[in-house]
Amino acid sequence: MPVRDAEATRQRLIEAARAEFAEFGIAGARVDRIAADARANKAQIYHYFGSKERLFDAVWESIVEQIVSDAPLDTNDLPGYAVRLSDGYAAHPDLTRIITWQRLERGDDPPHAFAVRSTQEKADAIAEAQRAGVVPARLEAKVLLALLLHVAAFWSLTSPDVLAVVGIEDPERRREIVRQAAEGVLAA
Amino acid sequence: MPVRDAEATRQRLIEAARAEFAEFGIAGARVDRIAADARANKAQIYHYFGSKERLFDAVWESIVEQIVSDAPLDTNDLPGYAVRLSDGYAAHPDLTRIITWQRLERGDDPPHAFAVRSTQEKADAIAEAQRAGVVPARLEAKVLLALLLHVAAFWSLTSPDVLAVVGIEDPERRREIVRQAAEGVLAA
Repeated sequence: MPVRDAEATRQRLIEAARAEFAEFGIAGARVDRIAADARANKAQIYHYFGSKERLFDAVWESIVEQIVSDAPLDTNDLPGYAVRLSDGYAAHPDLTRIITWQRLERGDDPPHAFAVRSTQEKADAIAEAQRAGVVPARLEAKVLLALLLHVAAFWSLTSPDVLAVVGIEDPERRREIVRQAAEGVLAA
Repeated sequence: MPVRDAEATRQRLIEAARAEFAEFGIAGARVDRIAADARANKAQIYHYFGSKERLFDAVWESIVEQIVSDAPLDTNDLPGYAVRLSDGYAAHPDLTRIITWQRLERGDDPPHAFAVRSTQEKADAIAEAQRAGVVPARLEAKVLLALLLHVAAFWSLTSPDVLAVVGIEDPERRREIVRQAAEGVLAA
């Protein structure tokens, strides 16, 4: 198969797998459904990825890359960073689902080197901004980053039972609340 | 079967189901494993609960009751409330897992009346404390409550890859960070 076709098949498999894993998780995902959705066959999945678990790793890595490129860290506007992240979660609910399946089904895995590196780079940038006096330094940079990431996931992780009471659907109002909470955490 | 034995069997089934659902989720749970762990049989599960889904509902309701009774709302000390909730999540990691499975596998269900009621009562109590000037009123009571619940779940919902970078294991330090973040959200 020409290289270009091989790469296109690989990409279609990752996209089909992303939808399948988002819906059913890792144990519940079926490689034959993924192959059919990608107009490929099971043998190609094993050829390109080795196993369903490695295919999940490939999907997971592509998601981390997407999050990082859609919402680059901006230490001059950390509340804005949290809002952009929350925009990404709102626009791509499958991201949150896959992140959540990963935690439930693979939470005991050793940390993923590429995700740890990406997190560490952000923590380092925040630490530098704290030394420069641009970011409040009451909380350590790595804790502050983790709290901002958590606040960004507010609307996508809050339970439907609580959301029913909160009753705020307007995307602009939702963004404003993430911004306010992030500012609160920064000033904490 | 005497009433007391019947109630004891029902309780053992709920406990066994809680462990099974926490580990495998709803689709992945096996009623024959639950029956065996509870020293009961599958017929008793269907007799007491009707279906695996209704058994999950019973587990879910017992978890909401446990959370509410372990960490009662205290509008005079909302950061302390968030810390007590986070203590509960730390002491019972199965709570977070079941809450998370519920969201992934049953997130499209209509809201649960008992959970909505419990949330609404807390929001009303916070609104009253805001009118009395005890709690800052910049954020609506229901939003403030949802943010405090979210902050309380910080350590139990943050991904292992981020936790690896944060690297804080000391429970006292973890509680202190939840308290600070909750204070920040209150002042937001």
